[in-house]
Amino acid sequence: MRKKKLSHQLVTHTKDAVLQLDANLDDQTGEGLGYVMAQLLAAGAYDVYFTPIQMKKDRPATKLSVLGDPQARLALTKIILSETSTIGVRYQTWQRTIMQRHFETVTTAYGPVQIKVATYGDLTKRMPEYADCAQLAQTQHVPFNTVYQAALVAVQQLKSEE
Amino acid sequence: MRKKKLSHQLVTHTKDAVLQLDANLDDQTGEGLGYVMAQLLAAGAYDVYFTPIQMKKDRPATKLSVLGDPQARLALTKIILSETSTIGVRYQTWQRTIMQRHFETVTTAYGPVQIKVATYGDLTKRMPEYADCAQLAQTQHVPFNTVYQAALVAVQQLKSEE
Amino acid sequence: MRKKKLSHQLVTHTKDAVLQLDANLDDQTGEGLGYVMAQLLAAGAYDVYFTPIQMKKDRPATKLSVLGDPQARLALTKIILSETSTIGVRYQTWQRTIMQRHFETVTTAYGPVQIKVATYGDLTKRMPEYADCAQLAQTQHVPFNTVYQAALVAVQQLKSEE
Amino acid sequence: MRKKKLSHQLVTHTKDAVLQLDANLDDQTGEGLGYVMAQLLAAGAYDVYFTPIQMKKDRPATKLSVLGDPQARLALTKIILSETSTIGVRYQTWQRTIMQRHFETVTTAYGPVQIKVATYGDLTKRMPEYADCAQLAQTQHVPFNTVYQAALVAVQQLKSEE
Amino acid sequence: MRKKKLSHQLVTHTKDAVLQLDANLDDQTGEGLGYVMAQLLAAGAYDVYFTPIQMKKDRPATKLSVLGDPQARLALTKIILSETSTIGVRYQTWQRTIMQRHFETVTTAYGPVQIKVATYGDLTKRMPEYADCAQLAQTQHVPFNTVYQAALVAVQQLKSEE
Amino acid sequence: MRKKKLSHQLVTHTKDAVLQLDANLDDQTGEGLGYVMAQLLAAGAYDVYFTPIQMKKDRPATKLSVLGDPQARLALTKIILSETSTIGVRYQTWQRTIMQRHFETVTTAYGPVQIKVATYGDLTKRMPEYADCAQLAQTQHVPFNTVYQAALVAVQQLKSEE
Repeated sequence: MRKKKLSHQLVTHTKDAVLQLDANLDDQTGEGLGYVMAQLLAAGAYDVYFTPIQMKKDRPATKLSVLGDPQARLALTKIILSETSTIGVRYQTWQRTIMQRHFETVTTAYGPVQIKVATYGDLTKRMPEYADCAQLAQTQHVPFNTVYQAALVAVQQLKSEE
Repeated sequence: MRKKKLSHQLVTHTKDAVLQLDANLDDQTGEGLGYVMAQLLAAGAYDVYFTPIQMKKDRPATKLSVLGDPQARLALTKIILSETSTIGVRYQTWQRTIMQRHFETVTTAYGPVQIKVATYGDLTKRMPEYADCAQLAQTQHVPFNTVYQAALVAVQQLKSEE
Repeated sequence: MRKKKLSHQLVTHTKDAVLQLDANLDDQTGEGLGYVMAQLLAAGAYDVYFTPIQMKKDRPATKLSVLGDPQARLALTKIILSETSTIGVRYQTWQRTIMQRHFETVTTAYGPVQIKVATYGDLTKRMPEYADCAQLAQTQHVPFNTVYQAALVAVQQLKSEE
Repeated sequence: MRKKKLSHQLVTHTKDAVLQLDANLDDQTGEGLGYVMAQLLAAGAYDVYFTPIQMKKDRPATKLSVLGDPQARLALTKIILSETSTIGVRYQTWQRTIMQRHFETVTTAYGPVQIKVATYGDLTKRMPEYADCAQLAQTQHVPFNTVYQAALVAVQQLKSEE
Repeated sequence: MRKKKLSHQLVTHTKDAVLQLDANLDDQTGEGLGYVMAQLLAAGAYDVYFTPIQMKKDRPATKLSVLGDPQARLALTKIILSETSTIGVRYQTWQRTIMQRHFETVTTAYGPVQIKVATYGDLTKRMPEYADCAQLAQTQHVPFNTVYQAALVAVQQLKSEE
Repeated sequence: MRKKKLSHQLVTHTKDAVLQLDANLDDQTGEGLGYVMAQLLAAGAYDVYFTPIQMKKDRPATKLSVLGDPQARLALTKIILSETSTIGVRYQTWQRTIMQRHFETVTTAYGPVQIKVATYGDLTKRMPEYADCAQLAQTQHVPFNTVYQAALVAVQQLKSEE
């Protein structure tokens, strides 16, 4: 199981402020919510997530949360209002502490895997990219965890050689 | 704060087996689920509860669970099939260990409160009835917990006099 | 299945800012939480919802969230402090994008149903009111979805005639 | 908005018994769980769903549940054991009440939509297929709900002509 | 069952603003999250809680939330970045309404129990401390609720003597 | 980073049937539930977990689930009835497929870590023990994941030498 550092991509710059949009939905189906998640991600939302909540009149419900660029507020709001049953969207801005990121590539017995390298002060984390591990697992007919752990081992060996 | 034991109602007999009906719902609104809970309870279900689940295609969903008399299976199934979007209902039977129950009444400074007395072997639990506490809290303009705790105190005093 | 536009009610005006009050509760029963939801809604809260959370020492817990008018903060806070076990309530204000709303009425084979009409720019949504559908379903002995879909059809026919 | 009944596909036959496989996972990432859901569905599981649970030592966890053909137990079990961190899978069989199903097609202003028709005794439900509505919504650049409701209207008109 | 007021501890002063740090985690195990909860509490976080959420690509996930002193932001952030897979932490500040607190002690048949006394204007709540009740329950071999309710009774008697 | 196989412990034998006990709780605090989880684990339950559910009358609630030896049913039932507010416990038996397990030990730069080795047919999984990693992380002042990944690397090297 050999590994090779193939490339250093550019550092990803990120903003310090992130917009959160929230809507509580008790008259929307789960099917429709899966659809709107895809629309919001396609429109550039950083993250879309659902939280199970409980609303009045014994209604199980879902809170839709969208994180994104504050500049994208109107575009994201319009998708939520168009694609869900809500009549209102609330929003606020959070500050963020973000690690700087770049990508390295290691080679495993199953093929190359990109590694996300995140740094903050003297802290560095290296994490195998899900998409690469998943693709190799499927094409090589091995469990996902086998590829993922092989990538972790390649990362450790890379570090011990530095 | 005085209390008086007002009555001993008959023991509630319960069956040893309980039916569970389950349906996973990803194309049903929360509004509609609140409605079906009421219908199922009105039809004699022992208990109806919702569990938040996550289904395929990024869909937040709800598992509807109904506990009831095995004899009531067809009636409860028909309500689920009529009132929800599901096309199937799965079911099984659990065994149950049930404490024997009767009701006593204590008097608090806010009025009388029924106490559920549950026994199983040498174990006895006494628990104030929610509905009584809630009604007294509203009519007497005191917090619910104030009435509930007053009922607990009355219960303890009753026990210490026995 | 005929429909008739019966009335145009006044547009509902809404504020741009909404208060959120939150409290994490690990020493409160679910019974008591159902009670406090009713108290908060009766006191004018816009929305009350529960989120299942997990707190320290292996405790399943509930986050109580209340949305309301910023002017109502002290009144809502007092209810939370009186009716729950929490010793603190945290709060913040969100901005909101709200669609303008008015109500129309359509007639279905089961009776009249109010339709909430929500508009925002060139977007218009028409949604049958739950309470009307639920009442007709019960009095006419048909499934809730039958009435709801009949109202949707009446809405579509109304739109195609405009 | 016209509609036309295009076809009657064969009734889908279904078994009366369904297998449930469960595993509690506290040492598995969500990324890996999304992967295993896809593997299980590809292997013929009827349904795969996740339930948020809380395990010992303050661990948020996920219960993986798989519904499938009792004949597929070993194949599904092997995927769970290979692709997740669990060392055990528990299983049981539920009985099921299943509505008979066939598909019809209606034509909306946005294109044709398959309708799932489910029958059980004198109960008949017609529900637009998600995949068709989603595809038309994307290609016609209209909200998902617009297509879905158009399909519901076409269904109602079909029924009133019968 | 006698009780005695043993002591009045000093009022606990609390700040009006509380920091919230949030991170969405889909590539972290539950085991690791239990570990980080302990680290954060040991570092002085006021509260740490987990919310089950649903992220893209069919991933069950957990939102880690930390409440703490705004002065502790960097220290708490560093623990989250070191001990979890997240590459970013978002944060905001809430205002708080906090009841003033001091502790009293009552004596029950099982031993002494500290009572948290919380006051806000004319509202006073007295709540038995969990740790004391749990310890007495274990050493006296009685159910937790037996000790808890005995403490509540002692509290009520104390109040009626004031 | 060297590793050494220190020992092969005996295979853990496990039963094919596992008991599940369930109780729905809407009148119990989270504090008390954390307490009962500890009691049940101390009494030999294999696993105890909580599922957030939603019960009637707008009550957030918790389903307590206990997995254990069918022989332990009465003992576990008695704890649930004594320590919670429920008046009934339902139970059933699942079949189980269990991987055979033994433990190996690897040595990392931070100290020795036990590895759980699970086998089923031609499938073998090796997973670092949480408790060992957590203890080393705390005593060596490094992140939990650093120890965990070092153990994974040691496992991989062990396998490549076999």
